[in-house]
Amino acid sequence: MLTMVGLGIWDEKDLSLKGMEAAVRSDSVYAELYTADWGGSLKNLEKFIGKEITVLKRNDLEEKSGRILKEAKEKDVTIFVPGDPLVATTHVHIILEARKKKIPTRIIHSSSAYTAIAECGLGIYGFGRTSTVVKPQKDYEPTSFYDAREVNKKNGLHTLLLLDIGIGVKEGLEILLKIEEKEKKKLVLPETEIVAVSRLGSGKQKIKFGKVRDIKKGKFESPAMVVIPGNIHFLEKEFLKGI
Amino acid sequence: MLTMVGLGIWDEKDLSLKGMEAAVRSDSVYAELYTADWGGSLKNLEKFIGKEITVLKRNDLEEKSGRILKEAKEKDVTIFVPGDPLVATTHVHIILEARKKKIPTRIIHSSSAYTAIAECGLGIYGFGRTSTVVKPQKDYEPTSFYDAREVNKKNGLHTLLLLDIGIGVKEGLEILLKIEEKEKKKLVLPETEIVAVSRLGSGKQKIKFGKVRDIKKGKFESPAMVVIPGNIHFLEKEFLKGI
Repeated sequence: MLTMVGLGIWDEKDLSLKGMEAAVRSDSVYAELYTADWGGSLKNLEKFIGKEITVLKRNDLEEKSGRILKEAKEKDVTIFVPGDPLVATTHVHIILEARKKKIPTRIIHSSSAYTAIAECGLGIYGFGRTSTVVKPQKDYEPTSFYDAREVNKKNGLHTLLLLDIGIGVKEGLEILLKIEEKEKKKLVLPETEIVAVSRLGSGKQKIKFGKVRDIKKGKFESPAMVVIPGNIHFLEKEFLKGI
Repeated sequence: MLTMVGLGIWDEKDLSLKGMEAAVRSDSVYAELYTADWGGSLKNLEKFIGKEITVLKRNDLEEKSGRILKEAKEKDVTIFVPGDPLVATTHVHIILEARKKKIPTRIIHSSSAYTAIAECGLGIYGFGRTSTVVKPQKDYEPTSFYDAREVNKKNGLHTLLLLDIGIGVKEGLEILLKIEEKEKKKLVLPETEIVAVSRLGSGKQKIKFGKVRDIKKGKFESPAMVVIPGNIHFLEKEFLKGI
């Protein structure tokens, strides 16, 4: 059996009792920590479950996933994953592979930035499509996250932009402003009001509402995200201003 | 201090270690169980934290919230909430009230149907706005959930429709078909392919992909939801068909 257990939004204590129980009962326990900046301690997590955890590389769950699936065919295997496991699309693929091989699968859910973002005060039902801001690559410059904002704006919806591993708010905004400069769609301008979020769910979390030009001066380290609000209810505005 | 602790997607074992710790350290512990069909046992939850839990009525957190806020001004108060706490917009309001009264607040996040829905195999980044299907009222018939589908369809996005407490998939679909009959927008028809989900995150969870007319014959009890897919990737299709 293959059990994917969400580690939740920040550290080892965001693990659920159900997830801990599953890991304790497993024959072997792995952790993938490459899809997100996880803020926890592997040592503490090992103490909680009373067994060693092997950290996986991306290859172990992609090209070389055959090895883990073979093990899961015979034994109980748990894989810890930051956040809620299937938010990372790559993990949907390994579950699909497991099913094809008739390996029973189970997902144990946990907290995710996707809903935790409601801490900024914007109602979760007012959000449209979410996207991830990634750095421009050598061979191509992805802009789909910028487009997400366009569709949401048209419909008065808020846009949650997760920033890729290692990207803080300042850098994320610079990537957006650079695309804006080319596209000239007036979607992300220095005077656009946004919410900047850093290390949500940790003791050091920062949430701030303000104009792009002012937010850029602050320090919002990775893991970080940005919300560009759509239509705002007066109670939401009150909340945002009080942050 | 006012701490809102998410109970997560299904039962008392979806609670995080962090949430348990906060409740153990609190002077008093409450639970609101009216915003969702919670599948857990209050008795077990009380055992986990070693103290009694007082169940709140809606009024205790809305019109009469002054009493709890007064207590939180002087002592450490924990309120358990199903799912991830601030997904229920009503709880954003009590946090706002607490802040106005200079009461420190803390949110401890947990799993939510919002991201757990990725278990159906549809990538979470392909979803547009989520909405909740509610029963027609005496004085008015809400249709905003039907409209959510319209905007999402136009943009090729999947629509997650949460069904209100007590509404199973069959009843939810009948509400949608009735609106369709009036509006004639061809958004939800008997031949529309959808995903029906019941009791997600529990040992009894059911996920099924099929046409509205066929799904209606099955039993998908509350808590339940429906996903109306937008553009589907071939890997997603493969996953859906295998459900």
